[in-house]
Amino acid sequence: MEEMKFDKSVFFDMSYGMYILGVMDGERPTGCVVNTVFQITSEPSVVAVSVNHDNYTNGCIKKTGMFTVSILSESAPQEVIGTFGFKSGKDTDKFASVPYTMNEAGLPFLPDNTCGTLTCKVVDSAELSTHTVFFAQVIGGVRRAAGDPMTYSYYHKVKNGKAPKNAPTYLKDEDIPKTAPAEKWVCGICGYVYDGSQGPFESLPDDWKCPVCGAPKEMFKKQ
Amino acid sequence: MEEMKFDKSVFFDMSYGMYILGVMDGERPTGCVVNTVFQITSEPSVVAVSVNHDNYTNGCIKKTGMFTVSILSESAPQEVIGTFGFKSGKDTDKFASVPYTMNEAGLPFLPDNTCGTLTCKVVDSAELSTHTVFFAQVIGGVRRAAGDPMTYSYYHKVKNGKAPKNAPTYLKDEDIPKTAPAEKWVCGICGYVYDGSQGPFESLPDDWKCPVCGAPKEMFKKQ
Repeated sequence: MEEMKFDKSVFFDMSYGMYILGVMDGERPTGCVVNTVFQITSEPSVVAVSVNHDNYTNGCIKKTGMFTVSILSESAPQEVIGTFGFKSGKDTDKFASVPYTMNEAGLPFLPDNTCGTLTCKVVDSAELSTHTVFFAQVIGGVRRAAGDPMTYSYYHKVKNGKAPKNAPTYLKDEDIPKTAPAEKWVCGICGYVYDGSQGPFESLPDDWKCPVCGAPKEMFKKQ
Repeated sequence: MEEMKFDKSVFFDMSYGMYILGVMDGERPTGCVVNTVFQITSEPSVVAVSVNHDNYTNGCIKKTGMFTVSILSESAPQEVIGTFGFKSGKDTDKFASVPYTMNEAGLPFLPDNTCGTLTCKVVDSAELSTHTVFFAQVIGGVRRAAGDPMTYSYYHKVKNGKAPKNAPTYLKDEDIPKTAPAEKWVCGICGYVYDGSQGPFESLPDDWKCPVCGAPKEMFKKQ
């Protein structure tokens, strides 16, 4: 077979949602953002979710065998994605800054800005190079009227989002097609591009922080 | 643990794309529609795809270990989804009615109305009750400028689509929340709801066929 062309930007056109996994770490709730949750079988209802080995949530799922999936709606603020996507549950109390509820199974979920929550019990898993794929039976499901679900594409286009390095869909900068150059202030931690909504970047107060990951203003670089 | 509420309509808010798998059945190209393709790892690039045991394509992937994933764009006509989603590759030459190209790996893909195509080589798989999840390394990728990718939600909302019975996301009619009753003509084979674009249903010619699955007019039922 001749060597094939491999333009990694083709991955940009695959469609995903945006989800918060909720797990227990002993007595403490924690979790992370994922975009790769999908339904595998309908009878029984089984979902698959891919979680990086380096995510603290991965070990918690392996220990407890249980997790919730809260489906983010478009109304979810960037801070939620920043807290759950760009900080580690190992040393951050992620649920301290985000309203949550415990369900009948003793698991945390987000009642606000979410279209619904699944409660899942792991039935099998597969280990890949950097990620574990958990297969889990859905044992509870609640739907909420909260507008349209947030797609990964919406997060990128409207919220200026970037995939954390642990995400299966992470692309190195050199793999991302360059668009026309323009002055942009980019967060050195999470890649958030300042949207100009609070005036010129230089005029932002010194204690201004990245709305996605909370990095201080000096972590931003002009591009 | 107390018994949990399980409203299956919560699955409606999970986000997916729409994809055509292309495989070889001996010398003959065949394939099917899937909505559950997602990237699992980025280095190397590995995707997962869920295919029902009853899909003819499943056996072809197991035999050859290779498939393409063509990412449908919103411009893809319903006939493509009807042909690839509601007919079996066992007794239908699906590629006879849809323009296709063979790539360097000897696999068929759809060049039209698609945002791009991945070429994939199976590296592992997991068997679930009704579906096989194939893990496959992406060895080739081509992106095309073809508008926005079609999401599963777009297919449902704009194209009046329904999941085939073999789909992981298939819901039985009794699980689907009822909306306000209105006279609708519904295809008894694939569930397509006539959109009225060619006038009243009763006035359609006798040789009119379901645009999704090709079923004859008499297969439609008034609801």
